[in-house]
Amino acid sequence: MAVYTEISDEALSGFLESFDIGTLVSFRGIAEGVENSNFQLRTSTGDFILTLYEKRVNVQELPWFLGFMQHLASQGVTCPQPVADRQGQTLRTLADRPAAITTFLPGVWPREVRLEHCRPLGRALAQLHLAGQSYTQERANSLGPQAWGPLLAACQQERVEAVQPGLQAELAAALAHIVPAWPGHEGNAALPRGQIHADLFPDNVFFLDHELSGLIDFYFACTDFLAYDIAICLNAWCFDADGTFNAEFSRHLVQGYEDVRPLTEAERHAMPVLAQGAAMRFLLTRLYDWINTPAGALVTPKNPLEYLPRLRFHCAVEDGRGYGF
Amino acid sequence: MAVYTEISDEALSGFLESFDIGTLVSFRGIAEGVENSNFQLRTSTGDFILTLYEKRVNVQELPWFLGFMQHLASQGVTCPQPVADRQGQTLRTLADRPAAITTFLPGVWPREVRLEHCRPLGRALAQLHLAGQSYTQERANSLGPQAWGPLLAACQQERVEAVQPGLQAELAAALAHIVPAWPGHEGNAALPRGQIHADLFPDNVFFLDHELSGLIDFYFACTDFLAYDIAICLNAWCFDADGTFNAEFSRHLVQGYEDVRPLTEAERHAMPVLAQGAAMRFLLTRLYDWINTPAGALVTPKNPLEYLPRLRFHCAVEDGRGYGF
Repeated sequence: MAVYTEISDEALSGFLESFDIGTLVSFRGIAEGVENSNFQLRTSTGDFILTLYEKRVNVQELPWFLGFMQHLASQGVTCPQPVADRQGQTLRTLADRPAAITTFLPGVWPREVRLEHCRPLGRALAQLHLAGQSYTQERANSLGPQAWGPLLAACQQERVEAVQPGLQAELAAALAHIVPAWPGHEGNAALPRGQIHADLFPDNVFFLDHELSGLIDFYFACTDFLAYDIAICLNAWCFDADGTFNAEFSRHLVQGYEDVRPLTEAERHAMPVLAQGAAMRFLLTRLYDWINTPAGALVTPKNPLEYLPRLRFHCAVEDGRGYGF
Repeated sequence: MAVYTEISDEALSGFLESFDIGTLVSFRGIAEGVENSNFQLRTSTGDFILTLYEKRVNVQELPWFLGFMQHLASQGVTCPQPVADRQGQTLRTLADRPAAITTFLPGVWPREVRLEHCRPLGRALAQLHLAGQSYTQERANSLGPQAWGPLLAACQQERVEAVQPGLQAELAAALAHIVPAWPGHEGNAALPRGQIHADLFPDNVFFLDHELSGLIDFYFACTDFLAYDIAICLNAWCFDADGTFNAEFSRHLVQGYEDVRPLTEAERHAMPVLAQGAAMRFLLTRLYDWINTPAGALVTPKNPLEYLPRLRFHCAVEDGRGYGF
């Protein structure tokens, strides 16, 4: 679930009075999401999402995220929009947490990925990348390749082995292969960079009447290789429930992307290592949470081992043809 | 959180087509609630709640609950109303679960109980009791006094002792005192009976603009002593965060109740033992869940020990004056 912090109704009413969005009608916690507390808020003027930013979010970076969402909307990308209070502020404090109200986005995220989702997803991702080109302030990817070694080390070898014997050695070996091959690493050619979403899983993409209706949850967005965002989507959208890679999904996703922004040859060539890195990133953060989440915590940690066959798959791919390009 | 079951968008769309409530606009899991999966559903015609009934609910009893909600509304009690499909059915199946759509109730449940909530709460409870008098089908309280001994036994002595040394003996002694003193037990006079809510905690009571706007979550409702519902509210609403009983809250609650339905002398007299029983009931079900919830479960079990000082308080109360009557 994603309600870590409860808000007294007095505090909420007082908070709402500083906005020009009407009076409180309904207020319910949202089950989706794991990083922040989210509430579906209805006032006499409409619907909104109230987000309380919990510990993992760096407060100093919140203006970057909120500014990025505003910028994207100004470029025609449908995403939640921060609502300014009567003083023009979008970032506020509520229940001792940084807090923001954003607009409500209609649509439903797909519980099951189908082929029809993939091409619109690719298009929307490319549109996000193009729109981000004019948002010039950079935000480093704190979960990029430089973070993976320390993250694995922080998991403690014996606890990793308890998750699956041999896992620690397999991940260390994969890292020793992926990091030196990473674009931009010690003389490797870099790839086109820009603002990426970096967490575009199905629960962050809404569809309505068979069309993509918007993107949400920009709190991992950062400045990185654009093609890495595709590699994340390959991991998040293109494996069937039994763990088999779905090349048809992948082909449609990339076709959709290239409808808007054609990939360079270097980006296609780098796709296997980018996809390996993306699998590694989600495997490692899940592994860390798996090992470090106390029993009885509010959020059930996700199984890191779901990403091991994906990582192995990407390690065996020779070039972009493995992804159906 | 309260989303145990995910629903594919295809299944959801198909399900909605069997209702005459428009097309899907938005669909989000609701964080509140622990027994069932609840979703806030918006269609082109309005807002609804979709509930999937999970394992703890007895399917055969669902028509009783849905019928009770319909009956209450017909008597002027504001609560969610089951929506019938095109064939006139309210109880359906979705994602292999019994499922129902109910109307959306505006309002916000109080995260902090304040004095102003208590009198309206008492009134609403009495109105529910009066409205229930003409709903004649009975449903036994499966969590009544006959259940408490077996529930304690099912918790296993050594695991109860691990929660707090001496707890098992204290609860056994309290049970040996409460059960024989229970109204209706072996020659004890009974109390006025009827349909009770049996779980009227703050998160099941909505307020809007300082007025009570409705009651929700009738899935523990049953036929039992009306005053036992008050005893549950005394436990759920009338203890401050530090565990101190708030006699002013209690007095307002009972005054509100008696604005609508005056208590009999026997009901006032029985309030201490009813309140002891109510504390015992919530302590025991929490204790059972605390001991039996696996690490990593979706729902964090609530601390049973919150109810131990409440039980002790009620055991020391001599008569209704202890509750501010």
